[in-house]
Amino acid sequence: MLKKINVLEKFSLIHEYYQPHIAAELNGQAVKLVKSKGEFIWHHHQHEDEMFLVVKGRFRMEFRDAEGSERHEWIEAGEFIVVPRMVEHRPVADEEVWIMLFEPAATLNTGNVENERTVRELGRV
Amino acid sequence: MLKKINVLEKFSLIHEYYQPHIAAELNGQAVKLVKSKGEFIWHHHQHEDEMFLVVKGRFRMEFRDAEGSERHEWIEAGEFIVVPRMVEHRPVADEEVWIMLFEPAATLNTGNVENERTVRELGRV
Repeated sequence: MLKKINVLEKFSLIHEYYQPHIAAELNGQAVKLVKSKGEFIWHHHQHEDEMFLVVKGRFRMEFRDAEGSERHEWIEAGEFIVVPRMVEHRPVADEEVWIMLFEPAATLNTGNVENERTVRELGRV
Repeated sequence: MLKKINVLEKFSLIHEYYQPHIAAELNGQAVKLVKSKGEFIWHHHQHEDEMFLVVKGRFRMEFRDAEGSERHEWIEAGEFIVVPRMVEHRPVADEEVWIMLFEPAATLNTGNVENERTVRELGRV
């Protein structure tokens, strides 16, 4: 892929919430774009770290430790957070947020949980 | 690392050109921030793909194929390009540009070339 990619242009092709789309792949990792609104589900990833870079809007990343105690971090446009493997987390967006994800290409959006929100076949933009 | 990272804040800590600084690591990859101005050198990476996301400013990525024929692509703020392994490339910035890189943590900035522009010990921000 030797064409540049315009991030906002790619986001304009996405019309559903919580449906990650692959924008690029490199070194076994994928750049995924997702529009989110509302609460996602609690989950973790057994072997993968995930990076969330906010392009537009903001969201709250909630964390829960083994004892069940919770905390959260607000991620605004121009900010990112890395969620290490095994850390229980839940993204919550009160308003629409545009997020660029970096994670292994094969990472499932719902991690250890598989339910109706799991996306197995990712679209491409 | 469960603290969010503000990208512009991290860039404000960098005061030299062509000195990549590590802002985060995940899955064996690193997020590196670099301020560039001027011509870099022609090089390639044998085993690593590299992603260049422009945060501020613009630069020109030049490409050269095995026959020596060249082309280039302008990458503007909000755009990125993935340079696959083995592709000969040279970033050129007429004005200061702020770039976020995604590549394996161990990738050398000058790839197959080692000279006075090679940075072996990366700073962290």
